[in-house]
Amino acid sequence: MEELKIALIGAGFMGKAHSMAFATMPMCYWPAPALPVRDLVIDIDKDIAEEAMLRFGFSRFGTDWKQAVTDPSIDIIDIATPNDMHLEIAIEAFKNGKHVFCEKPIARNVAEAEQMYNAAKSSGVKHMLAFNYRRTPGVLLAKEIIEKGEIGSIQSFRGTYHQDWSAAQSTPISWRFQKDISGSGALGDLGSHVIDLARFLVSEISHVTGYSNTLIGERPIRCGGVDTIGNVQIQDRTRMATVDVDDEVSFICKFKNGASGSIEATRNAWGRNNFITLEIYGDKGSIYFNYENRDELQVFYADDPVNRRGFRTIYTGPAHPEGSALWPIPALGIGYIDTKIIECHDFIQAIIENKEVSPNFKDGFEIAKICDAVQRLEDEGSWLSI
Amino acid sequence: MEELKIALIGAGFMGKAHSMAFATMPMCYWPAPALPVRDLVIDIDKDIAEEAMLRFGFSRFGTDWKQAVTDPSIDIIDIATPNDMHLEIAIEAFKNGKHVFCEKPIARNVAEAEQMYNAAKSSGVKHMLAFNYRRTPGVLLAKEIIEKGEIGSIQSFRGTYHQDWSAAQSTPISWRFQKDISGSGALGDLGSHVIDLARFLVSEISHVTGYSNTLIGERPIRCGGVDTIGNVQIQDRTRMATVDVDDEVSFICKFKNGASGSIEATRNAWGRNNFITLEIYGDKGSIYFNYENRDELQVFYADDPVNRRGFRTIYTGPAHPEGSALWPIPALGIGYIDTKIIECHDFIQAIIENKEVSPNFKDGFEIAKICDAVQRLEDEGSWLSI
Amino acid sequence: MEELKIALIGAGFMGKAHSMAFATMPMCYWPAPALPVRDLVIDIDKDIAEEAMLRFGFSRFGTDWKQAVTDPSIDIIDIATPNDMHLEIAIEAFKNGKHVFCEKPIARNVAEAEQMYNAAKSSGVKHMLAFNYRRTPGVLLAKEIIEKGEIGSIQSFRGTYHQDWSAAQSTPISWRFQKDISGSGALGDLGSHVIDLARFLVSEISHVTGYSNTLIGERPIRCGGVDTIGNVQIQDRTRMATVDVDDEVSFICKFKNGASGSIEATRNAWGRNNFITLEIYGDKGSIYFNYENRDELQVFYADDPVNRRGFRTIYTGPAHPEGSALWPIPALGIGYIDTKIIECHDFIQAIIENKEVSPNFKDGFEIAKICDAVQRLEDEGSWLSI
Amino acid sequence: MEELKIALIGAGFMGKAHSMAFATMPMCYWPAPALPVRDLVIDIDKDIAEEAMLRFGFSRFGTDWKQAVTDPSIDIIDIATPNDMHLEIAIEAFKNGKHVFCEKPIARNVAEAEQMYNAAKSSGVKHMLAFNYRRTPGVLLAKEIIEKGEIGSIQSFRGTYHQDWSAAQSTPISWRFQKDISGSGALGDLGSHVIDLARFLVSEISHVTGYSNTLIGERPIRCGGVDTIGNVQIQDRTRMATVDVDDEVSFICKFKNGASGSIEATRNAWGRNNFITLEIYGDKGSIYFNYENRDELQVFYADDPVNRRGFRTIYTGPAHPEGSALWPIPALGIGYIDTKIIECHDFIQAIIENKEVSPNFKDGFEIAKICDAVQRLEDEGSWLSI
Repeated sequence: MEELKIALIGAGFMGKAHSMAFATMPMCYWPAPALPVRDLVIDIDKDIAEEAMLRFGFSRFGTDWKQAVTDPSIDIIDIATPNDMHLEIAIEAFKNGKHVFCEKPIARNVAEAEQMYNAAKSSGVKHMLAFNYRRTPGVLLAKEIIEKGEIGSIQSFRGTYHQDWSAAQSTPISWRFQKDISGSGALGDLGSHVIDLARFLVSEISHVTGYSNTLIGERPIRCGGVDTIGNVQIQDRTRMATVDVDDEVSFICKFKNGASGSIEATRNAWGRNNFITLEIYGDKGSIYFNYENRDELQVFYADDPVNRRGFRTIYTGPAHPEGSALWPIPALGIGYIDTKIIECHDFIQAIIENKEVSPNFKDGFEIAKICDAVQRLEDEGSWLSI
Repeated sequence: MEELKIALIGAGFMGKAHSMAFATMPMCYWPAPALPVRDLVIDIDKDIAEEAMLRFGFSRFGTDWKQAVTDPSIDIIDIATPNDMHLEIAIEAFKNGKHVFCEKPIARNVAEAEQMYNAAKSSGVKHMLAFNYRRTPGVLLAKEIIEKGEIGSIQSFRGTYHQDWSAAQSTPISWRFQKDISGSGALGDLGSHVIDLARFLVSEISHVTGYSNTLIGERPIRCGGVDTIGNVQIQDRTRMATVDVDDEVSFICKFKNGASGSIEATRNAWGRNNFITLEIYGDKGSIYFNYENRDELQVFYADDPVNRRGFRTIYTGPAHPEGSALWPIPALGIGYIDTKIIECHDFIQAIIENKEVSPNFKDGFEIAKICDAVQRLEDEGSWLSI
Repeated sequence: MEELKIALIGAGFMGKAHSMAFATMPMCYWPAPALPVRDLVIDIDKDIAEEAMLRFGFSRFGTDWKQAVTDPSIDIIDIATPNDMHLEIAIEAFKNGKHVFCEKPIARNVAEAEQMYNAAKSSGVKHMLAFNYRRTPGVLLAKEIIEKGEIGSIQSFRGTYHQDWSAAQSTPISWRFQKDISGSGALGDLGSHVIDLARFLVSEISHVTGYSNTLIGERPIRCGGVDTIGNVQIQDRTRMATVDVDDEVSFICKFKNGASGSIEATRNAWGRNNFITLEIYGDKGSIYFNYENRDELQVFYADDPVNRRGFRTIYTGPAHPEGSALWPIPALGIGYIDTKIIECHDFIQAIIENKEVSPNFKDGFEIAKICDAVQRLEDEGSWLSI
Repeated sequence: MEELKIALIGAGFMGKAHSMAFATMPMCYWPAPALPVRDLVIDIDKDIAEEAMLRFGFSRFGTDWKQAVTDPSIDIIDIATPNDMHLEIAIEAFKNGKHVFCEKPIARNVAEAEQMYNAAKSSGVKHMLAFNYRRTPGVLLAKEIIEKGEIGSIQSFRGTYHQDWSAAQSTPISWRFQKDISGSGALGDLGSHVIDLARFLVSEISHVTGYSNTLIGERPIRCGGVDTIGNVQIQDRTRMATVDVDDEVSFICKFKNGASGSIEATRNAWGRNNFITLEIYGDKGSIYFNYENRDELQVFYADDPVNRRGFRTIYTGPAHPEGSALWPIPALGIGYIDTKIIECHDFIQAIIENKEVSPNFKDGFEIAKICDAVQRLEDEGSWLSI
């Protein structure tokens, strides 16, 4: 079986998740399209890099990502760094003919995204962005149902991604609150996932109106370490840093196919954890999905008998997309890692079969355009006053 | 015990609901502030009026609403007609010194609403609008929790009112689809309830952006009869009539207190029946309500211990607002009629105690202003294109 | 329209609920089979009786139930007293040719039940027991689905009725804890409802094994007043009274049609309010019902396509049993009173049309036999020890 | 870091799940107590064994389990075979001083279980049974809450494990329906998990009453292949084989601590997939868990204010048991594999730290005693007839 050697850049939470997927993908998909080999892991901090090698089962470690992109034995560059590093690493990886798997969002802003997409396009290699929620079996089932026309022509879409890990004023600053590193806040971090899902399930977005907002303007400083999202130790409550990204964003959109939609993302919604919800209304039926109960997809068929119709709560399993690779019983338990295993499979398969995979850098660029417009809404959008 | 004589104008579904409330309110609230007496029922169709008298337990019937507003023995005019009649009846009722209970929305448009509010203001009598969902015990509990500051300062609000009774192209035309009678479609019919709830629970709305939309442009003709919402017999499929109101509306708003919100209403969301949902996020907690499971209110307290916190699903009962009037056990069953019983009580009490009650015609006027702005969004709103 | 004069005996919570149903039934069902006339209300306490007359809209009041059963103008005796009075009143009512509507359970024990059933049988009048939960539209829909064979042959049944109002040791004693008045505790109060539902939906019960149990052996005394279930004021914490009925009961049963089942009832399940749940598994599908979300019925059809099947959450409305009498939109709100309105209608109709209605005294006797066996389980049942 | 070499015996679904856990456990728990090394995989079918080696990342393969138990380089024997092989393999493994990790149930019957437990006891090595659902973070949180006394003294327990993969008559025969291989049906397959959870969360079980039942007496033959539970191809509909194990079991139990409970398991409950539910009622609160929504635990505290109390839906995450090893955000997604990762960690840790781990062979023996009694209920149990 063919092997593809991977260099992972960034050893935080995402490095862990990717490594778990590399290790287990072939156990689920067999024969695998190729074996992903955990070869080289890079982190700027030597101790973290070395530990990551041992922990995540890599053969080598290093501290300079340039080592990875120029290493002739490496096939795939896996970018799991903060957003400000995506551009430079990806461009160099493409130059060196490496396939690129990159965490989302593609970059800090639309200009970077465009540059990256152009580099990807001319590279001839495969590229993919880690909008993994697309690959939840329930979402893949929604896609199948929509594509088969089972709910008819889509008329409206509502998507949310709500978390609460930054709702406390005591949640410390991190790169996720700093525009020069992240580009945006909840918008790029969470909203981009919903935009990806909307484009995946409905159609391209043509127009937006709405707002983005910063609720907590400054946060306590914390010291370094790997990215653990909200679960960091506060180091110094007396020193505060400015937040210059959005905490929440809410906008209404029109799709190119005539549907309309609303999209909301916030990291400050108390009680919501990974609250990715999708409501999709067609002229023949409806779909509801909530990632917090991700084994389920709810589907309503208008042509069920009027006195017997209701949302069907379908538990995804062997009969559904990617079911044969995962678990033999529905509701045995789709976890986060399952979405990454499917993602890993699809990328490896695309490389081996020399075909496009999505979401790729083109999708990333399209999403960046939408995020860019949403960020401009506060200044350029217009409201009617009452 | 004092008695207040009621003239009900309109004998459709709402006439029935009001009559049930009049008959049973004192059984729940005892001693009642006064006994509502079902005296006179008016419908333009004599047979319907006479039947309504017998069915709903009134003493008299008539076919001309002017008879009611000028009858000196009548204390309260209850307007349960289509929207195009609200203005004229209310104005005359106020002129004659009658208290007015009026179905929502207040009128077809903001101009009518303003005129009605002015008439109400100068009349000195009591007036109320039947935004009954405010009086669901779960919503009243949400109000109490918010007012006590338990979820802190409100940051965002999301409200929906989704139904599906007009989602089928075969759903026949009725006054609810005709602008000259209804003024608007889902906006006034459903959206106005959500606007009422938003104003009740959050604050005044200052700005809006979004859209309204007609999905099904023409519908088959049906013949007359009382208003049964979606459950009508189609009479003639070959003759079609034009729908000139919105089927769905979605807008984002800013509140005067700094919070932001989104409001959506549609009568075309397959699988949704009376899907009034509220999500309210404060800086100390959150609230979720879904009328389809109306005995429940979900509340999240951020200051519960971090490893023991989660939305509390509270079933409203004797310990909650209006609980002593209703049922001795939570979840015994709050129904539609319970909201109308509370509403009836509060209006009667306001009359007897000579105090304001809300939502009243001032609220109706404010809501009409917002609806008016939402209707103008399609022409005057602005969108950024991608 | 024919009128039937009612004498209500007992002016507590149930008297209120019945009165609301009498007042509003014809508003829902029109033309009504007959008009129930609230004529005479009896309570042993003269003040309570007089207040009940005013509050519940009766024409007369009295303090002696014998006045009611012998009054020639009365058509229907409505027994809403504690259980120890059922026997005597019912027997006398039958003797006087009155139709009898009686609160559940039929009596304190199987001997009384048999006597009452025999009296009913030989009386020639109509009799009904107020197992109202049968008449929740969702339950009626379940019945329809089962009878049409849509879920095939029933294999197993699970039913619960859990409340928590007596879970606190401070909940005071009342007749519901005293065997000489109530006959049993959770068994007769709650379990009898589940037994009624099981017999209604599955078949007769032939065998039982399991247990009943008293968790809290003594409770503080309270003073008199109408029955308000758990919501009483404790009067004297220093004086305690013995509880001689069960707090919880759990048994497994075999049905005559070959199905098996489990039934549990408790008034001490913290967090449960009116938690009547039904799970019914057939060889072609399944049904789930939870009264706390009573607008819904969940149905699973095995012959839906394997990759599209899931429990359908059906909201009962106009297309479902009794829907045309109630509300024009599903989920508008089925409340406790709706079950009593349907019940009232069916009893009145049975009288007018001279046909049997169920659950009647025969059902009550059958249920009493089962309860009797369950009460004997602690002494006579056998367990395997581990 | 120390390494422990594993020989996996059985390459079906469970072999896959265990292998995924071995590969990823150290990525979650770091530093790991030791590194589990996938050394040798055994399957009676050489092709399956060789494929398993490649697929699951083992170094060697074989066809004779005796090779594994006698190989001096092997530290751990992982028994993932059908139940009829457990005894022999385990006994030999213990003789050779191997630590044993064994799939559940421990064996086909109580006699085998006793023999295995005795062998385990005298071996001095570590042993564990794969009742993995105990290690769902939500269940571990329930354990923590109960142990801290937060819901007081436990009064009643209800547990279910319902699936539907054998509900169709066309589901073919497999070892899971054959007593000589499996020992029992739903009882050992599913019920044993619930018994494990009941003993884990409540206390030892002392008495049982109830039944077990075979609903479908014969099933079509299928041909061989790895165990894929319900998802097999039927090979020959014309040849049928007899089912001699239970399809469903339902019993009531008494616990040694005075609590009572009910336990039900079936593989024939249409619409249920992996429906492990737990209801636990204490005198100070309640717990509800449903594995189909396994990120959640619902907890009710009676001492929350009476007008603010309700089940709290807690999403397990970093603040909860094993949270620091898994995912940085609650509801990011606990899957089946997460339970196996925790299980793997705990077993490896027990070996390294030379301490007991549970559930072990003693637990397996206790569970077998209960299952044995349940199987005898049909013959020896007694019922009261109505």
